[in-house]
Amino acid sequence: MKESWSAFDTFEPHFRPLVVIELAKNTKEETKEWLTQRIVDKKKNGGAQLLVKPLVKEDGGKIDGNQNLYLVGASHLRLLLGAETVGLVKQCNDNSMRTFTYSSRNTFKDFAEDNHDFLTMAECQYIIKHELENLRAKDERMIPGYPQAKLYPGKSILRRLLTSGILLQIFPLHDTEELKKLRYTWYGQVKISYQPLDEIRCYFGETIALYFGFLEYFTFALVPMALIGIPYYVFAWEDYDKYVMFASFNLLWSTVILEVWKRCCAIMTYRWGTLLMKRQFEEPRPGFHGVLGINAVTGKEEPVYSSIKRQIRIYLVSLPFVCLCLYFSLYVMMIYFELETWALDFHEENESSYSNLMLFVPSIIYAIVIEMMNRVYRYAAEFLTSWENHRLESSHQNHLILKVLVFNFLNCFASLFYIAFVLFDMKLLRQSLATLLITSQILNQFVEALLPYWLQKRHNTKVKKRVYSVKVDTDLSLFEQVNLEKEMGTYLGTFDDYLELFLQFGYVSLFSCVYPLAAVFAVLNNITEMYSDALKMCRVFKRPFSQPTANIGVWQLAFETMSVISVVTNCALIGLSPQVNALFPDSKTDLILIVVLAEHILLALKFVMAFVIPDKPRDIQIKLARLEFESLEALKQQQMKLAAESLKEETHGEKKMN
Amino acid sequence: MKESWSAFDTFEPHFRPLVVIELAKNTKEETKEWLTQRIVDKKKNGGAQLLVKPLVKEDGGKIDGNQNLYLVGASHLRLLLGAETVGLVKQCNDNSMRTFTYSSRNTFKDFAEDNHDFLTMAECQYIIKHELENLRAKDERMIPGYPQAKLYPGKSILRRLLTSGILLQIFPLHDTEELKKLRYTWYGQVKISYQPLDEIRCYFGETIALYFGFLEYFTFALVPMALIGIPYYVFAWEDYDKYVMFASFNLLWSTVILEVWKRCCAIMTYRWGTLLMKRQFEEPRPGFHGVLGINAVTGKEEPVYSSIKRQIRIYLVSLPFVCLCLYFSLYVMMIYFELETWALDFHEENESSYSNLMLFVPSIIYAIVIEMMNRVYRYAAEFLTSWENHRLESSHQNHLILKVLVFNFLNCFASLFYIAFVLFDMKLLRQSLATLLITSQILNQFVEALLPYWLQKRHNTKVKKRVYSVKVDTDLSLFEQVNLEKEMGTYLGTFDDYLELFLQFGYVSLFSCVYPLAAVFAVLNNITEMYSDALKMCRVFKRPFSQPTANIGVWQLAFETMSVISVVTNCALIGLSPQVNALFPDSKTDLILIVVLAEHILLALKFVMAFVIPDKPRDIQIKLARLEFESLEALKQQQMKLAAESLKEETHGEKKMN
Repeated sequence: MKESWSAFDTFEPHFRPLVVIELAKNTKEETKEWLTQRIVDKKKNGGAQLLVKPLVKEDGGKIDGNQNLYLVGASHLRLLLGAETVGLVKQCNDNSMRTFTYSSRNTFKDFAEDNHDFLTMAECQYIIKHELENLRAKDERMIPGYPQAKLYPGKSILRRLLTSGILLQIFPLHDTEELKKLRYTWYGQVKISYQPLDEIRCYFGETIALYFGFLEYFTFALVPMALIGIPYYVFAWEDYDKYVMFASFNLLWSTVILEVWKRCCAIMTYRWGTLLMKRQFEEPRPGFHGVLGINAVTGKEEPVYSSIKRQIRIYLVSLPFVCLCLYFSLYVMMIYFELETWALDFHEENESSYSNLMLFVPSIIYAIVIEMMNRVYRYAAEFLTSWENHRLESSHQNHLILKVLVFNFLNCFASLFYIAFVLFDMKLLRQSLATLLITSQILNQFVEALLPYWLQKRHNTKVKKRVYSVKVDTDLSLFEQVNLEKEMGTYLGTFDDYLELFLQFGYVSLFSCVYPLAAVFAVLNNITEMYSDALKMCRVFKRPFSQPTANIGVWQLAFETMSVISVVTNCALIGLSPQVNALFPDSKTDLILIVVLAEHILLALKFVMAFVIPDKPRDIQIKLARLEFESLEALKQQQMKLAAESLKEETHGEKKMN
Repeated sequence: MKESWSAFDTFEPHFRPLVVIELAKNTKEETKEWLTQRIVDKKKNGGAQLLVKPLVKEDGGKIDGNQNLYLVGASHLRLLLGAETVGLVKQCNDNSMRTFTYSSRNTFKDFAEDNHDFLTMAECQYIIKHELENLRAKDERMIPGYPQAKLYPGKSILRRLLTSGILLQIFPLHDTEELKKLRYTWYGQVKISYQPLDEIRCYFGETIALYFGFLEYFTFALVPMALIGIPYYVFAWEDYDKYVMFASFNLLWSTVILEVWKRCCAIMTYRWGTLLMKRQFEEPRPGFHGVLGINAVTGKEEPVYSSIKRQIRIYLVSLPFVCLCLYFSLYVMMIYFELETWALDFHEENESSYSNLMLFVPSIIYAIVIEMMNRVYRYAAEFLTSWENHRLESSHQNHLILKVLVFNFLNCFASLFYIAFVLFDMKLLRQSLATLLITSQILNQFVEALLPYWLQKRHNTKVKKRVYSVKVDTDLSLFEQVNLEKEMGTYLGTFDDYLELFLQFGYVSLFSCVYPLAAVFAVLNNITEMYSDALKMCRVFKRPFSQPTANIGVWQLAFETMSVISVVTNCALIGLSPQVNALFPDSKTDLILIVVLAEHILLALKFVMAFVIPDKPRDIQIKLARLEFESLEALKQQQMKLAAESLKEETHGEKKMN
């Protein structure tokens, strides 16, 4: 191991740029030198042992102003050692998945010393990002040249550079050839096929591939609901028994699809190797801070932060804050409904074009206020979650998602709940539901993908004009490519995409028996969504860093919770429907009791089904068990060897004594 | 490893009898010889490599009739190797828990070559049982002397001997000295203290110690409920608000105690080493049969049975059968209630001492029928679960428990549910609840422990008289001891003890707001139960084989389900109470809606609490993570070594080629 680290040189004849670092324009030379030195420095000196080059024009001409763009790469050997550090799992020659180690490299499939495609470009970029983020201060007290940017041993240097505004951004480069191929298989052809998930994973990483996998799976899963929903619209079925059947099917179906998704997800992530990556041994996230201590699990030195302190922050600060925000949001909604009735009254009293206009004012004000609240809350949630100081990126993400989710859920559905269960106005409910669903879908697709794509295209042409002569859609030089990509928007993660699906699932399932056509719109939307999201990923945004994940995390829980809530709402809606009420003309009590009973049975059924369907297919279970068995056997053997050695030493010592 | 197996002799100067094998009186000599030969035979010849001796009188005198009792022991070395085979986890010198291996024996705490107490006697007996049960047929086609007792390669010999009636029983011997000490610390002193759980575990094994641990924990957990319940009885509080408070406290409290139990259980079983024992790598249970194949996880040869076939048997045969039985049981209950009303009518029409007597007839008939049904059902459940052919003992047990549990739950509580929610008779409910709870507790203690104890004592005196001169309560010779113990009853496992606690939990929580005193009776019962169960274990039954377990298995789920059901019942009861009904004189609908809302909130709270409270304390989590990390690191290193070797061979081969 030690030999390998020192065996290779930092000089590599074929430098392949993977990641771009953009510093502020006015960064001091001293700082730049120090940073590049730290990046290039040997591992044993606390460096990252990567390759770094300033970006220069191809013709060797000086660029205007300061040099502030750097390209980071790494030698092939360095990347392989980095793959071991991040715990990458790869397929072996015997088709099993194993954690990659440099020494056992020859047992892995497709490995050859000269095969530079063993690691995908996304994996290489992930490794480089990981190494850069884990570049930690040694004895520096501050960033050279910036006395106000304090450092302490163990502090992530990149993090401090970012927070003090010296480092503007760090992003991976696109691979234009690969991207072209991917675009073609993904959305370039006009044919009906599954998405190329494995190719997406190779290019964008597991998190994004898993999102597209979920989107595809979810769309297919909605098809039966949509098909059943169509005749309700066509024949205008309004009988309660048909609604009951539809709702029951919906509720059980949503449980089945969520359980089966877990299995599909396990199959995919096993194939990708991320199912086996260990969460506990993840290194701390860059933003994690604390006094330097010993990690109890790995025995390595790293910042340590008391779990009790974190719990206190979560339960005594974050939780009350979230509750307060929820209360405030409900309060705003009540004001909106009051304004609405006031506007209606006003319109009825003095009918005029002015009062007609007044009718829209409350809705507009409410929409603006909600949007503002959403934004402010998002900032607050991000701040609070950072402040909670989670050790792992995954747990940080989960806490952030949970916070934002609850608030968005309330903002989206509170008014519908109010219409359904306080105003008892089913017609208004159906109307609001349809309006909300359809407008939000159209708006989303436009704002999310098409508008940025158009802006991007316009911008690209401008930049190219400025940088070079105009040669649109021909191959770009590296200099042009970096300058183009650095101006592109940053993809902020799958959060908003999942949120959109989550809210859609809410529209489809929460009030499904009032508006059976929702699933149809959802399916139609998702089909175009796949294309517009693909377009967004490939053409609008900077390439995002790959992020290994084994599942969709807290979203699984969110969807399952939604499906439980939808049992309650659907049963209540059926109980409220005039057709069902007509069946019990004398006794409301009986009606309610029957509805409650049916709800309890459905809930029990859901839980039994979730319990009975195994989360992982049998063959994956066996493969995981085998790996665990093997590792325990290996541990036993290691112990045996250690014991034998200690025995040998003992007898040796005794002999010497004699 | 190989050297160790052949290094020791089957002859051991200090033979310590651990396990007794009792054969049928008329067993053929040929069979006896074959069996003892197989037990003594070397491991490499397919034997168990244990020591075996016929039981003889101390004075060397011949015993009457055939020799049919054999003592089984093992050399110290053999036991240590067996400990490795069963995967025993022991504490190391650095206080971590690790799987024991013979080669690394010196790293374990308290290990010394001459320390024969390193393994507890219960562990030794468990190892011997395991080895005997895994004595499998090689090329024998039948048991010698019994052509009808067929064997095939891989079939457990002991299992076949048992099913063909040649082997009567196999049981571990008591250690009279240790037992005396244990009895003294457990229930010999008059002082208030915790039970000596670690000592119980050393003597009886983890399953039984965990039961007593749970019993103790559960009793402590009931104390707050009991304390709060007392004033309700003393001051005859009947206000609905007080009941609501009591019920809410109960419901949330029961969630907390069940979650906290998981943590306590993890702490205990980590200390005992069973938390780390791997379930997947358990060897198949002796009754498991199938064609010989390769285990996909361990790669060892063993019987293999298709999981799909098992699923089909479970869902297409067992499940419908259980449902049918439940329906039948409900049907019987309805008949009972009809008989009851008929007897009441009869009594009212022609009042006489005869008709007065007739009032009790339905109850008596119902009790007898229920008892009969329970017994028949138990047999059927055992047969079905065997037929389902589970590979692991634990999953066999879980399926059996689940089947019996559901049936017992219905039999016990169906009548109470009927009284509460069909007859709406709260007074009768309270009365029935109190009668059922108290009589069942008294009866149980009597039938379960005191009566057998008295019978046992009488019987012991008789046997001693027959075997030798009368010297009661003095030290017994081995011959006497074996003859006494073989006549003792067999402890059939913790099932009935847990079932009793489960039903008690039902009485306490399901209708807690009707009868707040239930917890008081439960606490009182459990305190005496501890003593009577201890008495039962130590004096009434044969010593049971130790059985390692990491948790209380399916009982955790059962208790949790009960606590969910009790939310529903308590809310319904409060909704039915006249005080609450008086609050809503006009509108029953509002009342029901409020009750349903409260129920949903309570259920949601329960789930959130169960989700938020971690199942394992943090330090145990860290210890487990560390072990996993270490074993993965070991696996990596092993892979590296293998790769290095294969590389060496390659280059070696290339050189030769040249």
